[in-house]
Amino acid sequence: MAPEYKTADVSFDNLLRIFTVPEGPDSTLTRIEAELSRNLNLFLREHIVAEEKPLKEIEKDFSNPHIPEAPTFVSDHTQHLMDTLVAQSVHTASPSFIGHMTSALPYFLMPLSKIMIALNQNLVKIETSKAFTPLERQVLGMLHRLIYTQPDHFYQQWMHSADHSLGAFCSGGTVANITALWVARNNALKARDHFTGVEKEGLYKAMQHYGYQGLAILVSERGHYSLKKAADILGIGQDGLVAVRTDENNRLCPIDLQSKIQMLKAQRIHPFAVIGVAGTTETGHIDPLHDIARICRIEHCHFHVDAAWGGATLMSKTYRHLLDGIELADSVTIDAHKQLYIPMGAGMVLFKNPNAMKVIEHHAQYILRQGSKDLGSHTLEGSRSGMAMLVYASMHIISRAGYQLLIDQSIEKAKYFSSLIEQQPDFELVSQPELCLLTYRYLPKPVKNIRTTISLPEKTHLNQLLNELTKFIQKKQREMGKSFVSRTRLNPLSWEHLDTLVFRVVLANPLTTHDILQSILQEQRDIATTYAPLLLEQINQYCQQIATQ
Amino acid sequence: MAPEYKTADVSFDNLLRIFTVPEGPDSTLTRIEAELSRNLNLFLREHIVAEEKPLKEIEKDFSNPHIPEAPTFVSDHTQHLMDTLVAQSVHTASPSFIGHMTSALPYFLMPLSKIMIALNQNLVKIETSKAFTPLERQVLGMLHRLIYTQPDHFYQQWMHSADHSLGAFCSGGTVANITALWVARNNALKARDHFTGVEKEGLYKAMQHYGYQGLAILVSERGHYSLKKAADILGIGQDGLVAVRTDENNRLCPIDLQSKIQMLKAQRIHPFAVIGVAGTTETGHIDPLHDIARICRIEHCHFHVDAAWGGATLMSKTYRHLLDGIELADSVTIDAHKQLYIPMGAGMVLFKNPNAMKVIEHHAQYILRQGSKDLGSHTLEGSRSGMAMLVYASMHIISRAGYQLLIDQSIEKAKYFSSLIEQQPDFELVSQPELCLLTYRYLPKPVKNIRTTISLPEKTHLNQLLNELTKFIQKKQREMGKSFVSRTRLNPLSWEHLDTLVFRVVLANPLTTHDILQSILQEQRDIATTYAPLLLEQINQYCQQIATQ
Repeated sequence: MAPEYKTADVSFDNLLRIFTVPEGPDSTLTRIEAELSRNLNLFLREHIVAEEKPLKEIEKDFSNPHIPEAPTFVSDHTQHLMDTLVAQSVHTASPSFIGHMTSALPYFLMPLSKIMIALNQNLVKIETSKAFTPLERQVLGMLHRLIYTQPDHFYQQWMHSADHSLGAFCSGGTVANITALWVARNNALKARDHFTGVEKEGLYKAMQHYGYQGLAILVSERGHYSLKKAADILGIGQDGLVAVRTDENNRLCPIDLQSKIQMLKAQRIHPFAVIGVAGTTETGHIDPLHDIARICRIEHCHFHVDAAWGGATLMSKTYRHLLDGIELADSVTIDAHKQLYIPMGAGMVLFKNPNAMKVIEHHAQYILRQGSKDLGSHTLEGSRSGMAMLVYASMHIISRAGYQLLIDQSIEKAKYFSSLIEQQPDFELVSQPELCLLTYRYLPKPVKNIRTTISLPEKTHLNQLLNELTKFIQKKQREMGKSFVSRTRLNPLSWEHLDTLVFRVVLANPLTTHDILQSILQEQRDIATTYAPLLLEQINQYCQQIATQ
Repeated sequence: MAPEYKTADVSFDNLLRIFTVPEGPDSTLTRIEAELSRNLNLFLREHIVAEEKPLKEIEKDFSNPHIPEAPTFVSDHTQHLMDTLVAQSVHTASPSFIGHMTSALPYFLMPLSKIMIALNQNLVKIETSKAFTPLERQVLGMLHRLIYTQPDHFYQQWMHSADHSLGAFCSGGTVANITALWVARNNALKARDHFTGVEKEGLYKAMQHYGYQGLAILVSERGHYSLKKAADILGIGQDGLVAVRTDENNRLCPIDLQSKIQMLKAQRIHPFAVIGVAGTTETGHIDPLHDIARICRIEHCHFHVDAAWGGATLMSKTYRHLLDGIELADSVTIDAHKQLYIPMGAGMVLFKNPNAMKVIEHHAQYILRQGSKDLGSHTLEGSRSGMAMLVYASMHIISRAGYQLLIDQSIEKAKYFSSLIEQQPDFELVSQPELCLLTYRYLPKPVKNIRTTISLPEKTHLNQLLNELTKFIQKKQREMGKSFVSRTRLNPLSWEHLDTLVFRVVLANPLTTHDILQSILQEQRDIATTYAPLLLEQINQYCQQIATQ
């Protein structure tokens, strides 16, 4: 039995060993890692505690701000991590964890991730990444082609061009959206006459030069919260993020877009960018991209599509038509860590025009020299890991056809679940799935019977009680630890646009079965009747009272 | 022998298997991973090709923009990755790769990384990260205390407070710096009277309200290139990043800082932030932090310290005094993937005041609800991985004392190397190491003999030839693949501030020995004499010509 490596004695020779001597084959860490490799699902099921421990309790384990003075044995610390951290983490890969955009991951990505981390490349420059740089450029090329389907000679010309860029790989959709809007802002306020561009002179002088009283980005009221951050960071201000009305299907209303643009222009506010959402975070709907593109063309706005979540649908020949018009966008955000099944931390932004990113290009003496192919000259981030390798590998191992199968079955599962909900006497589907995301709530039978006939004040009161019930069920279900749906607030037409709390599910995990979906509904029903009898009684009585008026 | 998993047949059942069935124990991928775990250094040495292949050649392997239609076997693709990608990656962990800030990594981080990736937590919110959220808050608390050494009750009060934040974990120093300056900008232009703050109304209205003609960030001419990006993104403009003169030791000159601030104020340009660099990227020097802090206090500027690289020095009781004054900073950037020996993608920004980040706080309906402890309400990024776990583990396993040893030996190695260079008859030390970074160049003996006695035009001509030689040696050495130093351009006093190309080395890899350093010098000398005899001859002749005048 090989001795387990120990660091508890602080000497330089001992420290060197942590850089040169691997954990022994029988060490706690090696054993745990092997267990994980043998059966990841079992590992997660066995080591993550299902039932919720109050956050206050967990915080006690993580409350010491002192960096330990003396080292801990690797094995001891591993055990500590298993007990306090892993046990109290979230089983995001569980087939009944359908509340957020996480999913189970393909097995082959675990060992590949380890290789990636061991190589420890820094993608900011070729000197610390070499082949990873052309690889990342190829991945960007693949995604660009998936969206824009340019001919092969386009990619031959631009994919590896030092002075051009088809996009940027980044940590996620937020940075991708900020990058797109940064490029859009700088192109809208670029150098002209004696003005050297917003990137040089800043926003204040740019506004004076161009004679604008403000800048605006338009997006539907269902736009992602990160866009507010983007508007803040870029100096536009959150008030400059103008919300466009949506229709009953949560899709941007083109007529309202047009009138908002006119209204802004009348105030000398320049609407330099419009964002179409391809898969809203809350309901999964896709904006009318063709209509938006047409308006952007006429009004000379940058057209950005936030397809962080829905973009992967382009992999499916069955459903890619749902995103028709995306090829007209000036830029598109896609997250690989969502429906491309890559581990957390892989987003991309693609630009139709290989020259678009020139306005954010930057150089330095020791790296990113002019004419170099260093990726860092076009990214918001600096040092970055080689995550693109995982996207590249998945593209090859799963392939386009494999991704199509995954996408198709997710969407079909959502259709199944929506019809299952509609068949229930005591559930209400709030938003139909367009992709694999839908919202619904528990609606006691008496409410269902009277809901179409009651007055607005009655609806308002009833809706408040229902919101309380929805919140209660969602929290209780999470705490019980068997399954998880998330919740959000919508304003559905069927409830007179009242603030309505709903359950939200994302059915991207291929391991989620119909049986699981059935039992999630049953569990929610049981929670209502078992744990909220008083609230249920209150709702039923109010319904009776209305009915007998 | 267990059958290797195959995906080449696209059926949904087959696809499900990649989510449920691990690679077999005899699969190519398992074999390669095991090899890596057994001996990482050997794995890297054996699989990364040393000699440089032209980038043009590598690009040929990564030139196909088509996403494959049909799947590839995991084993086949793994082999493909080994041949085209791993073989052509950079051996950043090599003890003779001393040109950048990468280093060998402790062994235990490889299996821990795999656990982290398998858990696939999303730190944006507690619902997808649970214990990882308090863990990350503790890591931020530890770093905060390392810098600011507040009493324990401070951390009890603020570390886990829902409405406060001691900082943000992010992908790297660039995002950390942008976050610090974003906070500084928003605090400088905050809500007042009828003005609702720059985050709401944007920069243009903020400037009008406050009556400024511009904004400025001051930093020494050695500041990191990412600050230009920050000034651009934040709408300040790169012209608003004002370079302060440095002294002969590459340290910011306080008198010039003061006069630049006055000059800006006279133009009604508001200098809202000053950045002190604690370990410049090019020479490793630390700005006079106390002096900067004093000026910032008087002038009401936000004082940010960019200690992305040098911040880890605080772990050493021997050398932490070099960063004295950092505790006066309003915010500090530290990268864990530099001298804390964490894999790529781990940066942090810390704020002295737990209320500082309120001006960038943001909320959304489905996550980050008001009052939640979701980390995403104070980060530039959205979805993020659980990298903080690796910092936490390293703090415990290596400990403060262990980090001190690592830091101390790096600095002492740099002192050794600088004296070694000074002893050579044909090398010139260009910048003395303050931490473990130094610059130098090859200087043929005849130049060394006459350099103090010659005129400026002669120096200029000679320097041009020397720059050519330096560039040649650096590129040739990289291509030969045995060792790597980087190069940058400085303007040293001893060369009348002429543009001077130099070798730049960072001695953070604990596996780099004195022998290796000696042989790196010898290799550079050999390259000069063997591969650049004509250029050497030209330099020698010019020296002779000067001497005989």
